[in-house]
Formats: sequence, C-alpha cells, structure tokens
Amino acid sequence: MSFPFKSIALIGKHKNSEIATSILELAEYLSKLHFEIFVDHLTASYLPTDVYKALTLEEIGRQADLAVVMGGDGTMLNIARMLASYDVPLIGINQGRLGFLTDLSTDTMFETLNAMLQGQYTTERRMLLYAEVVRNDNSLFSALAFNDVVLYRGMSSGMIEFQISINNEYVATLRSDGLVVATPTGSTAYALSSGGPILHPSLDLIALVPVCPHTLSNRPIVIGPDASVEVHVLSSLDARVHCDSHSNYDLEQSDRIIIRRFPKTVRLLHSVNHSYYRMLREKLGWSELH
Amino acid sequence: MSFPFKSIALIGKHKNSEIATSILELAEYLSKLHFEIFVDHLTASYLPTDVYKALTLEEIGRQADLAVVMGGDGTMLNIARMLASYDVPLIGINQGRLGFLTDLSTDTMFETLNAMLQGQYTTERRMLLYAEVVRNDNSLFSALAFNDVVLYRGMSSGMIEFQISINNEYVATLRSDGLVVATPTGSTAYALSSGGPILHPSLDLIALVPVCPHTLSNRPIVIGPDASVEVHVLSSLDARVHCDSHSNYDLEQSDRIIIRRFPKTVRLLHSVNHSYYRMLREKLGWSELH
Amino acid sequence: MSFPFKSIALIGKHKNSEIATSILELAEYLSKLHFEIFVDHLTASYLPTDVYKALTLEEIGRQADLAVVMGGDGTMLNIARMLASYDVPLIGINQGRLGFLTDLSTDTMFETLNAMLQGQYTTERRMLLYAEVVRNDNSLFSALAFNDVVLYRGMSSGMIEFQISINNEYVATLRSDGLVVATPTGSTAYALSSGGPILHPSLDLIALVPVCPHTLSNRPIVIGPDASVEVHVLSSLDARVHCDSHSNYDLEQSDRIIIRRFPKTVRLLHSVNHSYYRMLREKLGWSELH
Amino acid sequence: MSFPFKSIALIGKHKNSEIATSILELAEYLSKLHFEIFVDHLTASYLPTDVYKALTLEEIGRQADLAVVMGGDGTMLNIARMLASYDVPLIGINQGRLGFLTDLSTDTMFETLNAMLQGQYTTERRMLLYAEVVRNDNSLFSALAFNDVVLYRGMSSGMIEFQISINNEYVATLRSDGLVVATPTGSTAYALSSGGPILHPSLDLIALVPVCPHTLSNRPIVIGPDASVEVHVLSSLDARVHCDSHSNYDLEQSDRIIIRRFPKTVRLLHSVNHSYYRMLREKLGWSELH
Repeated sequence: MSFPFKSIALIGKHKNSEIATSILELAEYLSKLHFEIFVDHLTASYLPTDVYKALTLEEIGRQADLAVVMGGDGTMLNIARMLASYDVPLIGINQGRLGFLTDLSTDTMFETLNAMLQGQYTTERRMLLYAEVVRNDNSLFSALAFNDVVLYRGMSSGMIEFQISINNEYVATLRSDGLVVATPTGSTAYALSSGGPILHPSLDLIALVPVCPHTLSNRPIVIGPDASVEVHVLSSLDARVHCDSHSNYDLEQSDRIIIRRFPKTVRLLHSVNHSYYRMLREKLGWSELH
Repeated sequence: MSFPFKSIALIGKHKNSEIATSILELAEYLSKLHFEIFVDHLTASYLPTDVYKALTLEEIGRQADLAVVMGGDGTMLNIARMLASYDVPLIGINQGRLGFLTDLSTDTMFETLNAMLQGQYTTERRMLLYAEVVRNDNSLFSALAFNDVVLYRGMSSGMIEFQISINNEYVATLRSDGLVVATPTGSTAYALSSGGPILHPSLDLIALVPVCPHTLSNRPIVIGPDASVEVHVLSSLDARVHCDSHSNYDLEQSDRIIIRRFPKTVRLLHSVNHSYYRMLREKLGWSELH
Repeated sequence: MSFPFKSIALIGKHKNSEIATSILELAEYLSKLHFEIFVDHLTASYLPTDVYKALTLEEIGRQADLAVVMGGDGTMLNIARMLASYDVPLIGINQGRLGFLTDLSTDTMFETLNAMLQGQYTTERRMLLYAEVVRNDNSLFSALAFNDVVLYRGMSSGMIEFQISINNEYVATLRSDGLVVATPTGSTAYALSSGGPILHPSLDLIALVPVCPHTLSNRPIVIGPDASVEVHVLSSLDARVHCDSHSNYDLEQSDRIIIRRFPKTVRLLHSVNHSYYRMLREKLGWSELH
Repeated sequence: MSFPFKSIALIGKHKNSEIATSILELAEYLSKLHFEIFVDHLTASYLPTDVYKALTLEEIGRQADLAVVMGGDGTMLNIARMLASYDVPLIGINQGRLGFLTDLSTDTMFETLNAMLQGQYTTERRMLLYAEVVRNDNSLFSALAFNDVVLYRGMSSGMIEFQISINNEYVATLRSDGLVVATPTGSTAYALSSGGPILHPSLDLIALVPVCPHTLSNRPIVIGPDASVEVHVLSSLDARVHCDSHSNYDLEQSDRIIIRRFPKTVRLLHSVNHSYYRMLREKLGWSELH
C-alpha cells in the first residue's frame, strides 16, 4: 500500500477552542498511520500537547503534502486563499452542517480520510481572483478572493455609480448597491443572493452580478477567466471593495478596481462519494417538492 | 371664475440657485392672477427680490392653500414629508426629466398651472410611514418616510439577521443585506431594484421587500396599511435604519424598529392629463418593443 | 351551549374513494353532536351508506350552514368557486400536507372542528375574479377564478403580444409567455413562480404578473380590487385563457379578456390557532437558516 | 490586394419579397468586385433575374467561401443551423434594427462588407446543441439548436415534472413551466426572459434555466460544454421539446431528452467595429441612466 501523501498539516477554525478535541483525535489517528503531522501554529495554541510540530501557514504551504482544514466554509475560504501560492491540496472537514468546501463530516472523518489517503479521492482545481485598487496610477491595495470581489456602497444609503470595462472595452455604466465579481466557487455565495447564476465549480469563469441595480435590465454577465475586468467608480460617498468579506478597502471617486484571475489555483480533494449536485440540493432545499 | 386656492407657496430645490429664475417667473405669473404668493424662506434667499413674503415650511403648512414645489422627486419627497402634518395640497414642477411626484414640466407650467388653479386637477392622497427605533423600551429615534423605511447592514460586509413580526405575530427570521418597508409611492424607488412589485399609488399598502436575502424563497410580501410592522435586529455589527435616504439611525443588536402608517396623508394635485401608467412606461422603458 | 351552525355539508375530493372513510367518520362524529349532515352527491357515491342526505353543490349552497371540504387546496379551490354565489362558510381539511386553504389536519380534525363549531373560529373573506372573453363585441366565455386568470401562449412556442388597459386607460404592450391576473389567494400559487409578490389574503387586490416578459422591466403591478382589467390580444397563434387551471378558452387575435372582481366573496373559517405566516414559512421553506 | 474569399452566397429572409432589391444590389456590387456570386434557390425565386447561380443551402455549404445572410436574427439562426455541418463563415445584414447575429446595417453594408472582404474582420466560433428524444431506447427525434433546446409544458396549464441528470449524475427533480437549455448565443434570447444570465458568446457553455419553477430556489445553472444533459419527463400531459422555436416534438411521459454539444461550430464574421457589449447596451436599454 503506497500513500500519496507523507506529511499532513492540520488547521482548525481560528478562535475556536472546541475544535481542539477533534484536531487532537485526528492528529493521533493520522500519526498511528505513520503520517508526519504538522499543526497550524494558531491551532496548536489551543491544543493541550506540543508533540505535533507547529508551523505557520507559510511553512505549511512549503512543507506539507496535504492540509486538512477543520471548520466551516468560511475557514476553508481563508485558509485556501492564504495557501493559494503553494499548491498544497486541501481537504475540508465540517463539524456542523456540511459546506460546499468542507464536505467531510467529523462523524465519518476517520473512514473517509483513510480511504482518501489511500488514493480514493478526486481532485478539483478552483480559480481565484486577484483585485487591485488603482488611484491616480498608483496601486494602493490588492488582495486575493476565492469567492468574490464585491464593490459596495457605504452607509450613506445612496446607490453608487460606476463603469465596467472588460479587456479595455467599455461595457456599461451602472447605478446600484454594488457589483459582485464572483468565481464559480463564489457563485453559490453572495452572488446567488444578488440574482447570479450557479456556475459549476469545475469551470473557470467570472460572473459579474449587479446588486439591486437601478436599471432592471442590468442582468448578470458571465465572461471568460482571462478577461481583465475594470470597475471605475464614478460617484460614491463611501464605497468599499471587499475580497471574500475578508480584506476590504475604502474607495474614493475615480478609483479603478482591476480584477483578474490569479495565476495559481486552489486544489481541493474530495471523497469519491462527493457530489456537487447533492450539495446544491441540500443547501438550496431542492430535495422536497411541496 | 372662482379659484379654489387663494394663497400659493413656492418652494424650490434647496441649494440650487438656478431654480431662482423659474421661481421668480412663476411668482410674477401667479401674482398677476391675484394669488397671494409666499416663498419658502430658504428658496427666498436665492431670489433677487423680497417682494414675496418668505415663510418657513411650518408657516407655509399653516397659511398656504397650496404649495408648488420645483425640483426633482427627491425635493418633493422632502417637502411632502415636512408638510405632512398640515394637509396642504402639493403640485410638483420638474425642470428636467419628469418624475413620479413632479409631473409638470417647466416648459408648459404656466398653461398647466393655470388650468389646475381653475379647478382642472385631480387629487391623490398618498400614505406615509412612521418609523420608531426602540432600545430597551426606550424610543430613541423616530422619523417619517414617504418612500420607505430601509433597514440596512453596514460597512462590515456581512448580512444582518432580523426577525419580522406583523401585529405582534411572528412572520419570519431573515438573513439579508436589508429590508425595505415601502409605501406604494416608494414601490417604484429602491423597493423595485430589490425585486418588489409596483403598487398603484392610490392604494394604501405596505410592501416588505427583503434585499438580497440568503434564503431565495424570501419573497416580497404586501400587507394592509394598518398593520404594525416590527423588525427585531438579532445580529448586526453596524446596521442602520434609513427613512427616505434622509434621516437615519445607527442600530444595535436587539433594537426594534416599529413601522406604522402615519395618520396623515400627502395630498398631491395632478393635471387632468396626468397618467401614472404613462409615467411608468417612460421611467421603466416599456415604450419600445425590441 | 349554542352552536352557530345547524346543518353541515361534507364534500370530499372528487374521484378519490380513499377519502370515504374519513368522510364517514366525520359524518358519524358530527351526527352525534346533533348536526344535520348533508353529503355532496358525488362524494356520497363513494360512501357505503345512504343514511346521510345527498345534495348537489347548488343545494348545499342554498341549504347548508357550513361546508366542510376534505381534500387538497385544488379541491377547495374548485368547491369554493362553485359555492361562491351562496356565501356558505367553508372549512378545509387536508389528509396530507396542510395547504393554504385546507388548514385542518385529519389527525386532529375532531377536536379542532369541535372547538370551531362551538364558535372558536375566525372568518376570512376572500375575493374572486370574474373573467370574460369578448370577440367582436360578443361575450363568448366567462368564468370565475379564485386563484388567477392566466393568459397563456399556446404550443406554438412564440411569445404572445398583448395590450393591458386598466379602467379603460392604456397601461402597456407586452410580449411574454403570458400574464397572470391573480387574487391575493392566488399570489402564492402560479403568480409566485412567475415573480409576483405575496399579497396577504385578507386584502382585496389584483396582481398583474407578466410571465417571462421579453422586456425585463415589465414587473408585477398591484392594483385595487375595483379596477377593470382589459387584456387585448394583439398577436398570438394559439393563446388561451385559463381560470384556476380549471376552465379555459382558446383565444383568437383581437380577442379581449375583461377581468373584474366578482361581487361575492368566499368565506373561509379558520381555527383560532391558524396562522397564515406559519403556513408561508412551511410552504416556502423559510423555517431553517442555512 | 488579395481577397480571402472567392465565392459568396447571398441568402435572404424566406417569404420576404421586399428583400429582393437589397439582395440584387448586393449581388451587383459584389459581382463588380469579381466575386463569384451564388444565390440561395429560395431567395432566387424572388429575384427578377437569373444571372446569379441559384444553389440549395447544401450546395452553398459545400461550394461557397462565405455566406451573407440578409434578414433578422431569426433568419440567421435558421441558416446557421442548416449550414452548421459545412463550416462556411457567415455575415449577417439587417434591414431593420440590428440584431445580435445580424450586425451589419443595409445602410452601410457596401463599405462595411468591402472592408471585411479585404480581411478586416474578426471571426467568432459559436457552439450549437444537439438534442435527441429517446423513448424506450429508441431515438425518435433529433435536431440542432443554435439558441436553445426548450422543454415546455403544453396547453393543459399544469406544470411539468422532470428530472435533470448531467453526465449520468442526478441533479434535481423540478416542477416548472419548462426548462431552457441554452447556448451562450441563446442566453440573450428566451433564457434571459426566464431569468438566466448573459453568457459571453465567445464561451462554450451550457445554461440550464428553469422556467417559472415551483421551487423558488431552482436557479439557473451553468455547466461546461462537454456535459451530456439528460432530461427525464416524469409527468406531463402534453409537453413538447422545441429547438430554436423551429423544430419541435411532442413528448410522452418517461421520454428522455438528451442534449449535447454539436461537434461543429458556427463561424460568424464581424466587422472590426463590432462590439458585443454595445449590442447588449442597445438591446437591453442600458444606455440611459434614468
């Protein structure tokens, strides 16, 4: 029996001490299977032992053959973004209700992981976006987004006005609450609430979804992954750009947000029983016909 | 010939000196027709003459038989709200593109006003909402809204969670960007961008329109005008309530927003040629079939 | 103890012999409580006994103090429409999943009915629509609708084009798959799937909901109950008008469909525990936050 | 000066004699430029001359270096589908309002065509779908679709119920008016009215857009072009499948519709000034901010 992975990093939801028990159980289980175990250094601070080597995320990115993330989709989103440059494959385990990105349950994690570690898994590569804010030709902010880059109006209750260009071609001028520029991964998150389509996560695509647009025909547009999207803020009292509801930056009038595909991808490993459509049915309540 | 109105107040868009010429022409025209002319005291400050009596809005409310408002729908919205307690009828004149509330054009205002002042008009009564924020049994804020009371999440990018009750009956718990509680007048404003229906302005109704709700089946609900709507903020970092994008108040967790119909109505006068449906066609681009 | 009702008619879902057992149990139970029992003559044909007087729906309408309908919402819809002229109050019992109109469960029907028959009920009056097809000034078809009057394109796959007028005022020309003209009762049926708002059933309103309109800004409009809606078919290969998916009529070009409120209402009795909003939460899956 | 094309076929909108004048002018103009001119044999029957060689569409497909189609988008849709197997490039000329597929105006056609024939054009390859109806393992019907394959309920007013599978994996069971399976070309046609996203036409994608689904969370899904979509009709009185509103087939319960990408593409030539986004702005009325 040959294992495709030799070292495994365990990463728990931050600021969540309850996850320590599960992480510890997992570490012990995987140790017995002779894997080298690393623990994310923040996660390690919740553990009652220091037998497992604590590493920063950067060190994990460079040294681990596999990272197992325990938490919800929000945790996975953050870890995936932070490890994006290292191409380390990721497995997500959820303590509660299964998520789109954390599709193993703690209840069955030992048997499922065991099978996966013996090679019974599928690999999915997912694209990320890279956003940059340019003011007077200076790049003032940049961040990665696994779900979406969201331009959003501020507290001042009025709509923002902005111009969209794609590959330097003028597309439209919109007045709206905002604009979601989403990856397929993000298409089932905020973009869906804003009226966007579900994009199969295996695809490389960018969805532009206006949020509550003034002009009712301003519908979502799906473009190819290699497009360069530029959003030019025409008028706004206090707009902001958000990347994955994580990083954000306050915008001023005339700012330009440039959004492009990030050159690296996130590598997710799924159990062979994983089904994206089953997840959709469960998450969106398609199961029952009323 | 008997005129139904004896005194007429003229009110221009605030902070807009260009409107002075039109106001002055109107004042002269109506003076010649032997109406007593009042000018809103803020508007008066832009006029090169003081022959017309300057009054505060409160004085106008008490003394004028009619108020003619010159500006856009935003101006009319503000004036109507401020005069709401006085039941003074309102006529709206628009310098630019006609609005839902300002349906006379400056181009034809003399002849249209002349006809209206001789009795050729229709009266429309429109309902207002009254919102109150209650924290620990204390009423901390209250305001009128002619268009809508909007609960909205703040800059912190996450959705807010809140509970809606109607007449003390639990309706639903929502997670969304916000909630628009709109009058029929407001149904063609922000509520429409959020997916709400168009409510004929002659009706007395309240529309509850969730903004980008997490649960896709959280659809707009229309209820009767005498319902008391209570929105209980369950979790929110920095939500806010806005009344007509004019007054607003920062909310804290556990705050309750109580929304009721205001006992008085706005009385709008329209030319007999006015057509609400024509306005809809023009504003919403229904005119042409592509 | 005084009972508000003396005679009760029992009506079961047509062509459903399984309902006979429940009907019979109910008849026996109510007989013992000294009510005079009538059974709808079609329902009676499924019963193994003829001790209960069988009446036509018309006779029930004229003679019964109350009609208890057993079946789903579709059954109640049909019976309510057929009894609409008689003002007989209706109670709906559902053998399966509770419906909007059939809100008593067979499981608890004895105790709930018992309480209701002793006066513990609320009464709800619901409006109906009356549709008429006029061709060359001849009225060719008319029917009642409790849910909706639906104009719909035929098999020939192209959109239909039609003009809407309200109270003889031109509203709009649309190209779409169809138009739903719904009562508040119908607002949670097909109109909802077409993007219409939920109208509280206590209201008297008419919703005009375009089905998949070509022009994306052709949004639902809600108007008052006393409006006369005229739909003028401009071009259509084989359009049809449907009333409650029950009666329908094939339309020709230039036909006019006139839709008005029916002068009588449906009187529904609910248990005092009935909650419309709870029904909405259950039917629309609002219960759980994902 | 070298011309990339030597022979050009001219094809006019069928059953439209008015187009003859324009076709004739074009034939004369192109003849003078020394192109060999073919005329579609149906179009030829409207011309007052027989100096131009009349060919069937199949002959055009095999012999012409280029086909110029004069008519609207509907005409182009038909011709493109019929020529799909031959890979002949297509240019569309519109006599009226420009279309998505017919983007040259008759007003400027000489100069624009002249430039294009000298090589100043861009080429766009667009995917087609191939639909097949299978009943009891027999393939009973098949057709190409350039816009969409539409499953649709019949006149009997009830929703249809069907199951969607993708690559033999179960996706969902839906109850709705229908399902649009659209190409990017079709994403701005009926799919858009049904709530689907705009897919950039350069992409190879399939959009599954439910039409008025009973379950409000049944949102559009976008999948890759190489997926095999199977729609299994569970219950339907008289459903039908339509390909481009052109070919259609009556379905029975248990029928399966298999939809796959057609192996060949449509090759559209555009003037270098052509802009897809400008077309979107014009067609969807994005131009003006209200």
